[in-house]
Amino acid sequence: MPAGDEGCPTGRTRLAAGAVVTGDAAGSIWRPGVVDIDGGRIVHVGPSSSAPEHHGRTVACPGLVMPGLVNTHGHSPMTLLRGVGEGLPLDRWLRHAIWPREAHLTPEDVFWGMTLGCGEMLRCGVTTSCETYFHDTAVVDAVVEAGMRCLVTPGILDIPGTGPGRGWRAMLDAAGELHAEADGRAGLVSVGLGPHAAYTLPVEALTAAGRLARELDTILTIHLAETASEDHQLQAEHSMTVPALLDEIGVLDARVLAAHAVWLTDADIALLAERRVAVAHCPQSNAKLGSGIARLVDLLQAGVTVGLGTDGPASNNDLDLWEELRLAPLLARARAADASVIDAVSAFGLATRGGAAALGIDAGVLAPGRLADVVHVRTDDPRFVPVLADADLMAHLVWSSASHLVADVWVGGRQVVAAGVCTSVDTVEAARQVQARAARLAAAVGR
Amino acid sequence: MPAGDEGCPTGRTRLAAGAVVTGDAAGSIWRPGVVDIDGGRIVHVGPSSSAPEHHGRTVACPGLVMPGLVNTHGHSPMTLLRGVGEGLPLDRWLRHAIWPREAHLTPEDVFWGMTLGCGEMLRCGVTTSCETYFHDTAVVDAVVEAGMRCLVTPGILDIPGTGPGRGWRAMLDAAGELHAEADGRAGLVSVGLGPHAAYTLPVEALTAAGRLARELDTILTIHLAETASEDHQLQAEHSMTVPALLDEIGVLDARVLAAHAVWLTDADIALLAERRVAVAHCPQSNAKLGSGIARLVDLLQAGVTVGLGTDGPASNNDLDLWEELRLAPLLARARAADASVIDAVSAFGLATRGGAAALGIDAGVLAPGRLADVVHVRTDDPRFVPVLADADLMAHLVWSSASHLVADVWVGGRQVVAAGVCTSVDTVEAARQVQARAARLAAAVGR
Repeated sequence: MPAGDEGCPTGRTRLAAGAVVTGDAAGSIWRPGVVDIDGGRIVHVGPSSSAPEHHGRTVACPGLVMPGLVNTHGHSPMTLLRGVGEGLPLDRWLRHAIWPREAHLTPEDVFWGMTLGCGEMLRCGVTTSCETYFHDTAVVDAVVEAGMRCLVTPGILDIPGTGPGRGWRAMLDAAGELHAEADGRAGLVSVGLGPHAAYTLPVEALTAAGRLARELDTILTIHLAETASEDHQLQAEHSMTVPALLDEIGVLDARVLAAHAVWLTDADIALLAERRVAVAHCPQSNAKLGSGIARLVDLLQAGVTVGLGTDGPASNNDLDLWEELRLAPLLARARAADASVIDAVSAFGLATRGGAAALGIDAGVLAPGRLADVVHVRTDDPRFVPVLADADLMAHLVWSSASHLVADVWVGGRQVVAAGVCTSVDTVEAARQVQARAARLAAAVGR
Repeated sequence: MPAGDEGCPTGRTRLAAGAVVTGDAAGSIWRPGVVDIDGGRIVHVGPSSSAPEHHGRTVACPGLVMPGLVNTHGHSPMTLLRGVGEGLPLDRWLRHAIWPREAHLTPEDVFWGMTLGCGEMLRCGVTTSCETYFHDTAVVDAVVEAGMRCLVTPGILDIPGTGPGRGWRAMLDAAGELHAEADGRAGLVSVGLGPHAAYTLPVEALTAAGRLARELDTILTIHLAETASEDHQLQAEHSMTVPALLDEIGVLDARVLAAHAVWLTDADIALLAERRVAVAHCPQSNAKLGSGIARLVDLLQAGVTVGLGTDGPASNNDLDLWEELRLAPLLARARAADASVIDAVSAFGLATRGGAAALGIDAGVLAPGRLADVVHVRTDDPRFVPVLADADLMAHLVWSSASHLVADVWVGGRQVVAAGVCTSVDTVEAARQVQARAARLAAAVGR
């Protein structure tokens, strides 16, 4: 995994904040506090009262600063397909609405779809995402131009007439080449592998992907137990659950990030914990597509590292991880019919610390040595009234604030959102491009 | 129910919109379209191409216009208690955190809490709410000053040391007096009754409330089957479910709005449909407090009128009904593990048409003769890209847009939000008041 130190502004900068929400496991907050940044990393965090002498630039952050949000499962170029195939269940949605259009995608389409996605995510305070799609060089180019941190995991899928259509061997080779070429680019990009799922790839392909991920010491992300029907299909073919199959063929020997992980048995959860498989929990996508409600509390109690994911904007339908940050604990409490199963501090940790751990990046907490991925949130809003104690700030962040209160965002110390406007992406041009390209895709499939 | 025609601007105004989302059951949209307003009511809606000649003022609405959202269950003065008692289940949360503080509330506290709540709701495009609380004259004053439409249903509760503490008879009498005094005020206020719940009031009180509601021909709203324990308690005492008990004692002969309605049997649902009881579905509050997931799809299929409610900002923790508009179909789909059980048009109808029907107000649809409660939403945002067909607009409204895109709001033809700022409420002063008063309440209970 590359360090995040290249191409970052030099010179020490101090964020002088009304409150510093560190994002650590204890929910520590400094009111008021400072975050000092140098060379793309955080060098000091603490209360204003005992801040070290400072000679560089100071940026006033009258609200609160917090770690950037981490989106652990996205297909963000699918901004091109936002709203397509509304109301279809996952299997039919993929086969009848999504894959036919994706067969017509060009690298330029993916570049603009990803660029619009980066603009949307950065504006919402999402500083890192994990992206599984096609035409991955275009994804890399888009995130580097946008100044966003990204784990790019090229999609590997073997369905005739979809994607680049080269078969899984060629796609796996290409992913290896992309790793050689782009891993570490601009201090922002990491390259992993994204074999689609156990129900869309032969065992041979899954095995080969696991082997390559181990060779490259990189993260392999895979859709896992997303729907009940997927689970039934695997049980029928292999007489075992998806996690058990992946373990059997050596995939879990790699650094694995399992996306969705909805339909898990107790034994599956124990296996994920034992093999240190992280989970990208995608509550909104799972609910919207009727896939189900994942066993979040059980996963956390078993010690599994859990991050949050939006999934693609065609199944969510936005990239605003703030919604997942709230929906994850809401669904967990509704599922358990118990308000005490998860609190605001734990929920916040999923979107920050948990996500960073799941992607193997050195962010997710405001602490010395970590990457300077920082978000400044306005608190001069009714949603943040009243504040009588630190705990109120955490409650308001999770239960009543929203992404539109994000004022400023830094990725690796470089400011990419200022006063609520994304300064690193021309969102208007990206929206124009996506609108025109979406119309072309619709025409290509005769809609 | 009063007409909404008093105190409204005169002279015909045309909203010339990029799109008019009428909110009717068919999901009709005019792109581009016009909405003509006169005397607080809508007088014409249709496509721009066949709009009648117009000589009054024209307001350009380059995004889309839609009916104002209707919040069918709120305790909005509880902005004063936002964040209090985090993580407690409903019963302990009420008894240990909320009710002790409420015993110290003054009418001025309630005025400022409600004022902040009005500012928050109007800013989110919520043009009407149903409010059950104490010190109801202060609630009326606040909504009239804010220019918001409101069904005020004085809370009737009989717990020593809580609320005004006068016992249910005196509270019921006071509610009747408020009806005589304030029903119809400013063309904005209606007055109903708000007996708290079957588990907090004796049968005699429930019966008397039902009788008074029938005499006044007004709406009676009651917390119904919110938690499993409430249901168990009633079953033990009366050997029947809450709806069956309320029917038995004549309460369902009134115009009843049942709040929450989570724990219902099939027979309960059939009874609610038969007795034309409307439901205020509060998915976020129910999830956050671990109360459960209501049977939304079953209620709709039985023909029950369903609106959405935020519940109080101490159990949600905001008054942004846009979140309920999205969460209701998400939870319904997750519960059914089926994406086809509810679509975007139906979900949108809950927050608008369904809510207006539940409160008995002549709004919720943009159509001639209806009250001119209209919201203009910006669509120049990545969340609204791409739009290839009318259906995309509905999908984006429900699945990817959010309240911060609300640009302008009219209530009864009077503009109360302009360019994203609530012009009828001094939100800064209200926030200052709520902060100070919340601190006083915390001190009063020794926290």
